[in-house]
Amino acid sequence: MFHKFTNDYSELCPIEIIEALKSCLDEQNSGYGLDVHSENAKKLILERFNINNGDVAFLSGGTQSNMAVISYLLKPYEGVISSDTGHINVHETASVEGSGHKIYTVKNNFGKILPNDIEKAVNINNNEHMVKLKMVYISNATETGTIFNLVELKAIRRVCDKYGLYLFIDGARLATALTSKKNDVKCSDIGEIADVFYIGGTKNGMLSGEAVCFKNKDLANEFRYHIKNKGAMLAKGFVLGIQFERMFTDNLYFDLGKKTNEIALYLKEELKKIVQVSDSDTNQLFVTLPKDKALDIIDKFGCELWTDLEDNLEIRFVTSFRTKKEDVDELIKYLKKII
Amino acid sequence: MFHKFTNDYSELCPIEIIEALKSCLDEQNSGYGLDVHSENAKKLILERFNINNGDVAFLSGGTQSNMAVISYLLKPYEGVISSDTGHINVHETASVEGSGHKIYTVKNNFGKILPNDIEKAVNINNNEHMVKLKMVYISNATETGTIFNLVELKAIRRVCDKYGLYLFIDGARLATALTSKKNDVKCSDIGEIADVFYIGGTKNGMLSGEAVCFKNKDLANEFRYHIKNKGAMLAKGFVLGIQFERMFTDNLYFDLGKKTNEIALYLKEELKKIVQVSDSDTNQLFVTLPKDKALDIIDKFGCELWTDLEDNLEIRFVTSFRTKKEDVDELIKYLKKII
Amino acid sequence: MFHKFTNDYSELCPIEIIEALKSCLDEQNSGYGLDVHSENAKKLILERFNINNGDVAFLSGGTQSNMAVISYLLKPYEGVISSDTGHINVHETASVEGSGHKIYTVKNNFGKILPNDIEKAVNINNNEHMVKLKMVYISNATETGTIFNLVELKAIRRVCDKYGLYLFIDGARLATALTSKKNDVKCSDIGEIADVFYIGGTKNGMLSGEAVCFKNKDLANEFRYHIKNKGAMLAKGFVLGIQFERMFTDNLYFDLGKKTNEIALYLKEELKKIVQVSDSDTNQLFVTLPKDKALDIIDKFGCELWTDLEDNLEIRFVTSFRTKKEDVDELIKYLKKII
Amino acid sequence: MFHKFTNDYSELCPIEIIEALKSCLDEQNSGYGLDVHSENAKKLILERFNINNGDVAFLSGGTQSNMAVISYLLKPYEGVISSDTGHINVHETASVEGSGHKIYTVKNNFGKILPNDIEKAVNINNNEHMVKLKMVYISNATETGTIFNLVELKAIRRVCDKYGLYLFIDGARLATALTSKKNDVKCSDIGEIADVFYIGGTKNGMLSGEAVCFKNKDLANEFRYHIKNKGAMLAKGFVLGIQFERMFTDNLYFDLGKKTNEIALYLKEELKKIVQVSDSDTNQLFVTLPKDKALDIIDKFGCELWTDLEDNLEIRFVTSFRTKKEDVDELIKYLKKII
Repeated sequence: MFHKFTNDYSELCPIEIIEALKSCLDEQNSGYGLDVHSENAKKLILERFNINNGDVAFLSGGTQSNMAVISYLLKPYEGVISSDTGHINVHETASVEGSGHKIYTVKNNFGKILPNDIEKAVNINNNEHMVKLKMVYISNATETGTIFNLVELKAIRRVCDKYGLYLFIDGARLATALTSKKNDVKCSDIGEIADVFYIGGTKNGMLSGEAVCFKNKDLANEFRYHIKNKGAMLAKGFVLGIQFERMFTDNLYFDLGKKTNEIALYLKEELKKIVQVSDSDTNQLFVTLPKDKALDIIDKFGCELWTDLEDNLEIRFVTSFRTKKEDVDELIKYLKKII
Repeated sequence: MFHKFTNDYSELCPIEIIEALKSCLDEQNSGYGLDVHSENAKKLILERFNINNGDVAFLSGGTQSNMAVISYLLKPYEGVISSDTGHINVHETASVEGSGHKIYTVKNNFGKILPNDIEKAVNINNNEHMVKLKMVYISNATETGTIFNLVELKAIRRVCDKYGLYLFIDGARLATALTSKKNDVKCSDIGEIADVFYIGGTKNGMLSGEAVCFKNKDLANEFRYHIKNKGAMLAKGFVLGIQFERMFTDNLYFDLGKKTNEIALYLKEELKKIVQVSDSDTNQLFVTLPKDKALDIIDKFGCELWTDLEDNLEIRFVTSFRTKKEDVDELIKYLKKII
Repeated sequence: MFHKFTNDYSELCPIEIIEALKSCLDEQNSGYGLDVHSENAKKLILERFNINNGDVAFLSGGTQSNMAVISYLLKPYEGVISSDTGHINVHETASVEGSGHKIYTVKNNFGKILPNDIEKAVNINNNEHMVKLKMVYISNATETGTIFNLVELKAIRRVCDKYGLYLFIDGARLATALTSKKNDVKCSDIGEIADVFYIGGTKNGMLSGEAVCFKNKDLANEFRYHIKNKGAMLAKGFVLGIQFERMFTDNLYFDLGKKTNEIALYLKEELKKIVQVSDSDTNQLFVTLPKDKALDIIDKFGCELWTDLEDNLEIRFVTSFRTKKEDVDELIKYLKKII
Repeated sequence: MFHKFTNDYSELCPIEIIEALKSCLDEQNSGYGLDVHSENAKKLILERFNINNGDVAFLSGGTQSNMAVISYLLKPYEGVISSDTGHINVHETASVEGSGHKIYTVKNNFGKILPNDIEKAVNINNNEHMVKLKMVYISNATETGTIFNLVELKAIRRVCDKYGLYLFIDGARLATALTSKKNDVKCSDIGEIADVFYIGGTKNGMLSGEAVCFKNKDLANEFRYHIKNKGAMLAKGFVLGIQFERMFTDNLYFDLGKKTNEIALYLKEELKKIVQVSDSDTNQLFVTLPKDKALDIIDKFGCELWTDLEDNLEIRFVTSFRTKKEDVDELIKYLKKII
């Protein structure tokens, strides 16, 4: 059986995470994320992202984090601007709308939003019969594998400041974004530019867990009430605390991201020798193949069907922290055979 | 430092759970609970509860499960009947109301609801200007440690049938309920009587996880959409699947519950020699002490303050699968000293 | 056929309201309540209630106003304290919960809340696992026809100030409250004590309409967005503006209330000669009769069945601005005959 | 001062409506729409639209009706397909999303949706991580003044049947749609094709009021609970009943629509002699003018600014049942002068 390139959450975790959990078996810890591991993990994260007066909460997943943050910061008549490809808009079963808020979409530019489109959106929605736009949502890495550079992020921050919008960065794949070869954004830049962002654990080797970081403690001061209200507060919060503590010790979080990107880059270069590959900067690669060949690859290598182009299918390859050179070589060998 | 009697979710898990996870480190599994471990766990659970045509979904916590189930089955104008002490009414930060539904409370009878009170509630709320009652919520074990016997459950089922109400059993502490010395309810009774119930993992030794069981598959057929919408679907659903699979292998789930009850019973009997103890059937015991002594015990043994009775405080002792005879002995020794 | 004592919204309106509307047939007015009539009505109301820096919005009904105000001022995890007899708790089909908020009930005291019960409620709900109480809801007149005196209102205000709670007064029957013989509360007291209240039009002779008044303009500054979001903004807002303008010209609003109370008082005194009558201060009177006689009265005079006491029924008599002495006399004559 | 062409809800009502109300001043009517006028109005409407087993509810406005219907028929994870220009998407302050549902937009085709775009939308949103599409929302007349012909409506119905989608027609301007010179759709066609639609009163001469019609009574059987829950049930429902009763007596509803269209057509033809006019079939006309001239017309004639095209502005002219030939002549005279 071949290695699957389905996604980056098919594998449980690296052994380090299991070892970290195991080392705590004899402990008793406070519930609901008020334990020493969670406290330590928060401290490590705030330091790493150079946030002096912020706060962190650990949640279980990306959709949950997106919904919880957006419904916490917005009032019922306020909405969030997202690219049309945004995860909240496409792949979250209307979770944000389910919590009562409109997603106002703008056409994506390689998965990203242009500052000018934010400005236009705010100017169009300018009276009480229209949604009041109050937040910009971006993903880094984006849903198409691209990343924001520092100039782009700063330009978005400026337009947010101009119009009083929150900037929220979905970092479900922040690990691969920040360790991409093309990346020029530092952790401290994220900590400075975003009002709130999260550090994705689930897609970078944790059993589950996203660290939602608020730049400003005051903005976060009732977030714990809110996540409990949304069913998003774990009784054993320390399960997340222990994992994030380990992830931000010895650089594990970033090492895993880097490893994931390196194997993706290898895959990309090998693929490029035989097919055309999307211009992705991280661990998601998109390839268009004739329908029958695409279906064969989907069947053998677990790729996800991304876009149905009638005669052709665009399919997605994703690498994870466990994908090995041999896995790629086998894939390439198979591909060469059928193309 | 003393062992804490704060709750039954202060400890991570028994070693068996860690071992089960560890044994899967080299696997790749399908996401979102569609993996082989989850499928196997479902099968084991349905068999054990003797449900032939039902379905199971794995969620992360009790509040989340309560909110997800209730908001799935009720329409916006429909409400759920709960005892005033019900977890959904007291300790979930208005999560059910946050999802848009009224909780209609009736006075508890040792933590339980009487069938007659359900009947009265339905008869009072009998027109379109009042909430339409459509569900009964009970907890077994209850929030005060009592359990339902079979006669009581059947009587509630009958009144539910009479008025077309769903019966939903919160089984956050189902393990201790079903392994209590006083219990006469079998797993198959639960499977037959409840329309939907959940099997609590978090409070019985899992890292997290509740197994929501629907008696009727058809009733569950869009529940996966709903839990995604509520942010309650884990990408790595197999983390829950692996744990539940282990829990329902070799009777581990019930062994842990039994162990927890046995040490609770020992504690109860020792306590009764020196103070008055609530008439609990499971692992929660309530004791009323003079304020200063109660505060000392809270400080040393981590008990939760349950009710402020001005001069006295009612405090709660909870045992877990890890509480040992020595832990109890130390507590009793200390208590004897200060009383 | 007899006059019906069903409620105070069985009749369209006094001729003055029709005349006011008719006089505007040739006008063109701005939409959504931004017209000159609405502006004038707001001015008249703010003056009458001595509010210097407040704002007013006109809505269509009581349930709508309650839901709109509560969901505007509260965050998802915040709740409102109400008496168990509160209209929002009993007769609004879970509208407040439908908008996502918990109603925390305390036992009523003749339809009213005691300050001490508010204090207790706040002290019990003191952590993030419980609803955060943020508002007190009272009705004046209450659902049982009683009214608050000035000392009671000030005491509630004090406890609200102590705990940072909004005070919201449901004034669906404010007209009869403020014109009751027993009343010692002035319009300006209401304007000073409540953070937000509404002046009921529907139950005092308007086609429909409630004037929601905010003491502080800043608190109201996005309320228009919110009511649009809740489907509560009328395109022809001037229909409400014209009516309220007329109501607050020549004292019409209070004259109608006074008239309604006077006939209620006459009814009360006549009733007291033959049956026991509830201690109501306004236009709702409650009488308990043997079942068969009660059903006969319900049938003939349209009374509402209030409480089923098995052998007896408590029924409600309501007078309106159109109830006449002869209507009462006929009722009394009939009652005397059957008792 | 000039007649304003701002919209079709600037004027109160024709004298017939006032007379109808006045004739009921001495009546007592049942509350909440259960009165004889409402019953009669329902009967007249169901007959007129040839609906044999349906039901009707009277609501206060368009946004309210849209929100109430959509949130009644959809489950939390279900969404509604609308054109990007749909009123629910653009001009309702996120009311549908506020009630918990996603609007999935497709590019409009002269304000309308193409069946093929519905089909594509359903096929793309094909798994539980995406919104479950369950309803199609169209407006007739559309937001740009165009209307659906019978062939178009039937084609949409077919695709709805194919995919199990509800078809909901927003008829805020149904009067002008059905009386347009271009119209080939009969009332009975609407009654047959839509699962639910509403007959707009507010924009056709009523004080307020929309008649929400369900083709199938069973589908409507708990709608009254729902509208109460949404704050949309009027205590004096007979205010709407009396008006609709009058509107569907002597063809008043359609006469008003026809009159509105005739004056719009006259305006259109006069405008076309001097400027380019949108291809509207009803009482909304869109004209693009140089910015300064447009602003002058907006100032004098109350037109709404529709689209900011930088150097030019697209502005909207709307006629109502009260717009007279002289009003149009004055406008044209002025326009000729400045162009």
